[in-house]
Amino acid sequence: MSHNTFGHLFRVTTWGESHGPALGCVVDGCPPGIRFKLADIQAQLDRRKPGQSRFVTQRREPDEVRILSGVLPDGEDGSLLTTGTPISMLVENVDQRSKDYGDIARQYRPGHADYTYDMKYGVRDHRGGGRSSARETAARVAAGALARLVVPGLTVRGALVAMGSVEINRANWNWDFVESGDNPFFTPDPASVPTFSDYLDSIRKNGSSVGALIEVVAEGVPAGLGAPIYGKLDAEIAAGLMSINAVKGVEIGDGFATARMTGEENADEMRSANEGPARFLSNHAGGILGGISTGQPVIARFAVKPTSSILTPRQSVDQDGRDVDVTTKGRHDPCVGIRAVPIGEAMVACAIADHYLRHRGQTGRI
Amino acid sequence: MSHNTFGHLFRVTTWGESHGPALGCVVDGCPPGIRFKLADIQAQLDRRKPGQSRFVTQRREPDEVRILSGVLPDGEDGSLLTTGTPISMLVENVDQRSKDYGDIARQYRPGHADYTYDMKYGVRDHRGGGRSSARETAARVAAGALARLVVPGLTVRGALVAMGSVEINRANWNWDFVESGDNPFFTPDPASVPTFSDYLDSIRKNGSSVGALIEVVAEGVPAGLGAPIYGKLDAEIAAGLMSINAVKGVEIGDGFATARMTGEENADEMRSANEGPARFLSNHAGGILGGISTGQPVIARFAVKPTSSILTPRQSVDQDGRDVDVTTKGRHDPCVGIRAVPIGEAMVACAIADHYLRHRGQTGRI
Amino acid sequence: MSHNTFGHLFRVTTWGESHGPALGCVVDGCPPGIRFKLADIQAQLDRRKPGQSRFVTQRREPDEVRILSGVLPDGEDGSLLTTGTPISMLVENVDQRSKDYGDIARQYRPGHADYTYDMKYGVRDHRGGGRSSARETAARVAAGALARLVVPGLTVRGALVAMGSVEINRANWNWDFVESGDNPFFTPDPASVPTFSDYLDSIRKNGSSVGALIEVVAEGVPAGLGAPIYGKLDAEIAAGLMSINAVKGVEIGDGFATARMTGEENADEMRSANEGPARFLSNHAGGILGGISTGQPVIARFAVKPTSSILTPRQSVDQDGRDVDVTTKGRHDPCVGIRAVPIGEAMVACAIADHYLRHRGQTGRI
Amino acid sequence: MSHNTFGHLFRVTTWGESHGPALGCVVDGCPPGIRFKLADIQAQLDRRKPGQSRFVTQRREPDEVRILSGVLPDGEDGSLLTTGTPISMLVENVDQRSKDYGDIARQYRPGHADYTYDMKYGVRDHRGGGRSSARETAARVAAGALARLVVPGLTVRGALVAMGSVEINRANWNWDFVESGDNPFFTPDPASVPTFSDYLDSIRKNGSSVGALIEVVAEGVPAGLGAPIYGKLDAEIAAGLMSINAVKGVEIGDGFATARMTGEENADEMRSANEGPARFLSNHAGGILGGISTGQPVIARFAVKPTSSILTPRQSVDQDGRDVDVTTKGRHDPCVGIRAVPIGEAMVACAIADHYLRHRGQTGRI
Repeated sequence: MSHNTFGHLFRVTTWGESHGPALGCVVDGCPPGIRFKLADIQAQLDRRKPGQSRFVTQRREPDEVRILSGVLPDGEDGSLLTTGTPISMLVENVDQRSKDYGDIARQYRPGHADYTYDMKYGVRDHRGGGRSSARETAARVAAGALARLVVPGLTVRGALVAMGSVEINRANWNWDFVESGDNPFFTPDPASVPTFSDYLDSIRKNGSSVGALIEVVAEGVPAGLGAPIYGKLDAEIAAGLMSINAVKGVEIGDGFATARMTGEENADEMRSANEGPARFLSNHAGGILGGISTGQPVIARFAVKPTSSILTPRQSVDQDGRDVDVTTKGRHDPCVGIRAVPIGEAMVACAIADHYLRHRGQTGRI
Repeated sequence: MSHNTFGHLFRVTTWGESHGPALGCVVDGCPPGIRFKLADIQAQLDRRKPGQSRFVTQRREPDEVRILSGVLPDGEDGSLLTTGTPISMLVENVDQRSKDYGDIARQYRPGHADYTYDMKYGVRDHRGGGRSSARETAARVAAGALARLVVPGLTVRGALVAMGSVEINRANWNWDFVESGDNPFFTPDPASVPTFSDYLDSIRKNGSSVGALIEVVAEGVPAGLGAPIYGKLDAEIAAGLMSINAVKGVEIGDGFATARMTGEENADEMRSANEGPARFLSNHAGGILGGISTGQPVIARFAVKPTSSILTPRQSVDQDGRDVDVTTKGRHDPCVGIRAVPIGEAMVACAIADHYLRHRGQTGRI
Repeated sequence: MSHNTFGHLFRVTTWGESHGPALGCVVDGCPPGIRFKLADIQAQLDRRKPGQSRFVTQRREPDEVRILSGVLPDGEDGSLLTTGTPISMLVENVDQRSKDYGDIARQYRPGHADYTYDMKYGVRDHRGGGRSSARETAARVAAGALARLVVPGLTVRGALVAMGSVEINRANWNWDFVESGDNPFFTPDPASVPTFSDYLDSIRKNGSSVGALIEVVAEGVPAGLGAPIYGKLDAEIAAGLMSINAVKGVEIGDGFATARMTGEENADEMRSANEGPARFLSNHAGGILGGISTGQPVIARFAVKPTSSILTPRQSVDQDGRDVDVTTKGRHDPCVGIRAVPIGEAMVACAIADHYLRHRGQTGRI
Repeated sequence: MSHNTFGHLFRVTTWGESHGPALGCVVDGCPPGIRFKLADIQAQLDRRKPGQSRFVTQRREPDEVRILSGVLPDGEDGSLLTTGTPISMLVENVDQRSKDYGDIARQYRPGHADYTYDMKYGVRDHRGGGRSSARETAARVAAGALARLVVPGLTVRGALVAMGSVEINRANWNWDFVESGDNPFFTPDPASVPTFSDYLDSIRKNGSSVGALIEVVAEGVPAGLGAPIYGKLDAEIAAGLMSINAVKGVEIGDGFATARMTGEENADEMRSANEGPARFLSNHAGGILGGISTGQPVIARFAVKPTSSILTPRQSVDQDGRDVDVTTKGRHDPCVGIRAVPIGEAMVACAIADHYLRHRGQTGRI
């Protein structure tokens, strides 16, 4: 990966800071002739947008996306057609409150990138975290919305499966519920909503924060996407998910649990199929073997650490090397993992779209 | 990542199959003027080499590395000097037994890449797994041995911390013991050796296999390596580790455990330091914040699934779509996780070396 | 090169069409801590801007550049400081007249990219040439303005040295005159202005167009930039210049003339120097030997073909395969080579800045 | 381009020095299922091989290529089948005479890369030019031989069209004669052979050298290959050709002559065709418009400077900054341009193969 670009044929470059005038992305390599509406992109951004419940940051950003290039109007209904040239998308920042950050302009918030940015660059945009702000992820979600259109039949869905010490009951899994209006958590388990609400209210009122576990499932991934060694589909999904702010772990299929398994337990047995080459009797592999998709659902999970911006004072130092106690005011997500759901989906969708094009390029077999 | 290349300035391209004449790598972008001996590279390959105990594959490969380009003889003691041009390294395959694979030439071993290779390429070198064989990792280890020389003061060490259901006792951690002659497991806990021996003997005698958990620690990583978004140091370490055969999960620092933590628990507090900019009071972050190294040890863990090649018959299909029962003979590691230790180190070392050069390039601050 | 990105460490991605709302670029990898003013960027764009004389297109575009990310305000005088994160720059399209193109919406203009875009993408933005419009080059010039700031002491200047059948007199070469207000041609020869004026007036009045030859000279390029094989400094300058619209040839130093020379004539002899390692007695090589800069001025020339959009009817076909006669109205440069001068400079500056960072990264010798 | 790699989907990495044990390349991304024989590769290497006439270097290298990975034996006739995994090819160096270079170990040959390598790396393999030796091009030719197989119906042929002050008569052009046994010059004009022979004999006997002009023509290139901006087909051909040792200029189609043309002269008019979309009435564009292939033959020319290694003493300096007179003994080509013909073909073939795969990847239209 380059610094601010990912993908090989479906290439996404993002730019923008939390408190600059705007943020955005350039998607290069998108196939021509894809018909879509701006609303298809906006719908994904709306899922990630702040301020939608008391459980996320109260910053008010409409996150309205504009497409500046790479499309043509197509027909009377507002449809757009990709031309194959780079698609530039832009989201304005509207509700900056830089003064919230005055106190910490010269302090390093523990757990945050303040310190490492200064170590790297010797200069830092402290306002809202600058480039390390989660606002950057709006650009990823916009790119991911395009990526979803590249692979025919692809569906990429995500859900929050644990928040702090509270886990969902997988027996209650209901994909439809994830997007329901009564669900501020992207949880697939309706029964978990009151529990998560009470738990996160208590966290929030304490000025604290908490981590979360997210699962992303991609269905309709053709067998054969990926590459045997470094460009493995799972390696690139791992990189994509780990590149999301606050993510500290990624696993594919049974993931870390496979370390405890035997070969007999882990093997996904196969039987002949009426249609297609074979069917699998299980999916411990999470849809990827040897870096290449099997045709089963691709399953990835990632761990999001608790927001570093908390009200509890923490010991730290400032830019002059003096000991300080840091308290972060500003407006923050008590659990950034919630809004990470559409972001994780976007990164998985981009990795799959990229490998779809690469596979078609190398083999012509799609 | 390109298909068979990783890294941006310190670039590694590997090639070779299990049962071809040789395998190797080309390391491009290595700084000029690094003085080393062939034995420095060979020593790393010897750590990964098969046949060193009854707990790993009995294939007998000397794994002698040759350097074909990019170095000059320097002095009378056999030292070599890098010239800055591409360094090509080659390891011959000596002990192939392709006939072991005759039975499964047309069968798909469950959990293996046989099926996905055929889905992708429509042609497959079934002998020893072809390109998906763990033999490819010898090339990574050779490249990693060079990478270790790029960053002054860098030390990258790994250890096996769990095998199947058995974990080490971290209170006994002893880095020196990891490399000791009495330790066929790369375990840091001397007390774990008899336990692992008995456990793996039983697995091996049953023709089964088992997964493992590996931890890699890099010390001497300067603060400031990495990049804020897609080229994050942790994202590239994640990609590198996930690209190793059989790896299904990667985490940095406290990793998946952070999903259960609060912001207070997760924050690594700082105090001013006598030398240097600051010192951290803990290392939950695993040495990386916002994708950039903090100067603390970089800590990564990865899960290796059990070897898919087992003696127990498993249900599968063959290339003609017929149901078959597959039993893998050949010579296999009952726990591939053991030999994954030096491989994981190599991937971490390569990612750090690459970011060291990238950081120097962009900022000139090293 | 990726489709719409160039550079390895100093990476430029451009986007935008002639008749969309805007065009722009993202510059990734710019070193942090560079202090500059928006006017430094604008000054370069103003040199390329249309409508500045009767000899260029009469499209009225202010070409005001906005910087949307990657900089911080620094001080009271409006200075900006690069932060090391991606710098997004945007120029709005103001004076589109899409109806000019109604007649040719379905026709392929000979010598233009209309036909090949349709062959490639099956869909095409015909308005003003879409992505193949020379308006895209505004984004390159903006990026080049930043690139000039990356290498201390670097000066990159260009001049038009021939237009159609008229050549300048090199004996009159005056760099200061190139930028003079009385010089609508970027010619370094004051005596050539009336000749070029008369010549181009006649071309313009005939509804015709004419080609040109441009020379770019970079001074202050440190010795050692480049790479021995594919990433040669000259190879990347060649790619950059050839990627400019309408460019059909590139040469370095004595270029095509070297094909006629003997080794004695071509050799740039050297003598010891009071300061620095050596001085050259000539510069046939154009400042690059073996792909690496010598420390002498880097000299590149490129040929720009005549604008394809002419009033003279030409035989062609339309999208339905019918024979048509095409006449291009719109507003066009009778000699696009004129405005190619600052564009060529920008591409050379970007290639040098990129190799400056790459050289520092690999060798630490700057 | 990376330092020693070119191509995006069809990626070639080369390695090796003139006087090391071997040189070679890794071709990554080659489509699977291509059937060929080792002799197909060897035939191209034989065309470039030294020692085939008195007009080229007398170094005796069999240049026998070995394929170490990425292929499977296919059938009884020695055919090979690409598997889609990286293809590693190796050529041993047999006839090194390092002692020829003893005198110039510490001297900088004018016009050679000696000086710039030392400026860049601070260390240099002086034996035979090290990495900057034309021997490296054997690896390109091997890669190009594979590239030719990637695009169905592609033919790439080259010819020497001028040597020093002597040009061929294009009216005599005969492609068959280029490869004839009586033609040590790759000239397409039978009448030029005695002239070139006499001319080059005189150059050679004087210990001098001379430049040359080469033309490469690719037929069977489908319309639509390339990209509108930086990844233009012509930009990548230009980079590829300029990356060949001693090349100082590149042009496409009418190239530099277009600078003198009017729009009417330069336009390639079109008429409707019985088959396919259209036919062109001329090919000034050299088969590329807007960076994308038109379907006409792709035509590129490049200028090769005279060999810098000459017997005439030249003024120079040594590594200690002392003035010296340099005379190069060794065995050298009096006109390196001759053997550049198959090398130029290889670079053009690689660029086309890469864009063929990229076009298929992005658009699926092949």
